[in-house]
Amino acid sequence: MRILYHLPLSPFSRKVRLALAEKRIPFDLRVERVWERRDEFVAMNPACAVPVLQDANGLVVADSGAICEYLDEAYPDGPLLGRTLAERAEVRRLVAWFDQKFYLEVTRNLLHEKQMKRLLGQGSADATALRAGYANIKPHLDYIGWLAETRAWLAGATLSVADLAAAAHLSALDYIGDVDWSMNDAAKDWYARIKSRPSFRGLLTDRISGLSPPAHYADLDF
Amino acid sequence: MRILYHLPLSPFSRKVRLALAEKRIPFDLRVERVWERRDEFVAMNPACAVPVLQDANGLVVADSGAICEYLDEAYPDGPLLGRTLAERAEVRRLVAWFDQKFYLEVTRNLLHEKQMKRLLGQGSADATALRAGYANIKPHLDYIGWLAETRAWLAGATLSVADLAAAAHLSALDYIGDVDWSMNDAAKDWYARIKSRPSFRGLLTDRISGLSPPAHYADLDF
Repeated sequence: MRILYHLPLSPFSRKVRLALAEKRIPFDLRVERVWERRDEFVAMNPACAVPVLQDANGLVVADSGAICEYLDEAYPDGPLLGRTLAERAEVRRLVAWFDQKFYLEVTRNLLHEKQMKRLLGQGSADATALRAGYANIKPHLDYIGWLAETRAWLAGATLSVADLAAAAHLSALDYIGDVDWSMNDAAKDWYARIKSRPSFRGLLTDRISGLSPPAHYADLDF
Repeated sequence: MRILYHLPLSPFSRKVRLALAEKRIPFDLRVERVWERRDEFVAMNPACAVPVLQDANGLVVADSGAICEYLDEAYPDGPLLGRTLAERAEVRRLVAWFDQKFYLEVTRNLLHEKQMKRLLGQGSADATALRAGYANIKPHLDYIGWLAETRAWLAGATLSVADLAAAAHLSALDYIGDVDWSMNDAAKDWYARIKSRPSFRGLLTDRISGLSPPAHYADLDF
């Protein structure tokens, strides 16, 4: 049995769920409350963070970047990291852009402040962080829109982990109602395209107890 | 001509310099003052961060993770990411550990606060960040020591990017005198081994104007 240890709103977990679904690799989801620091989980990933993939052969892979690289090596059908060296360099540059830059400038300031701090008992959201997050999302949507207008998908001619990373962050923020899609039409069109893919269904039907998403969250014509 | 755009104390640049040197790939170094936001550089890397590699064939690769993956694909001699799927998963998990966790918990709190803020004109170091950085370095050195005692190199039987990433962060911190090597003997022994490799020479002879390293910085018997 293949198990992905995850948290429903973790953008890094969402990226891996999308990658697995795009490759049509079946898997079971298991919620891991990382703040409980379960011994067996810390043994699998000393960083005690999701996602962690336990593959059907027993191999444990921790860290969303390591998991995506692993999936493309172990299951090369439907490559998600590009084919040529230049394509792969561009996919990985953009994955770093979304998972590091977008994460630090937007996701952490909004999702972490509003949701994770509550879960971890770290107090209420910091107003400066929220202001920064809301200010930073616009230039990021503009960049996504610009990429989507100049290429078929964000990193080039084919769908890649770059699209999945961007969509993972935005879908988690969309769940808490923090994406104003009117800011950039091209970014919205790109998101509508990726949201309509079968791989996205699991994310759209996810519900977190005590926190309902806005009405447009699962609507494909939002 | 192969050019690596870098900053001397950037741990991410140092990791790539070590990877290039381990693979015996010749390259020229060019200091990029990222805070000047030079147009040609932003065009190469919209994130306007070092390192960026411009390979001899003209291909531009941005982001240290993308560069290391690229180097192992384009120059497979002397693989630095492991051979089997399990080895590669472990190397990448540890690279993420050092470049994300160690970076956020230690490097950013010390090196960024003391050096980058001054360069960027962002004011003086934050005392809370410094305290956190000094408190966090001990458990990290213990983890490195534990890995070094149970394996030939940090990720397994052979030297890998995991060693280079850890050594890159520690060497930059060592330059500003922030590593107390008496904290963990096994970590110190591992660092002495990697510091003695020919690939390390470039880092040890680097000098930043106006900032001298402590006497032990370039000493192989520190």
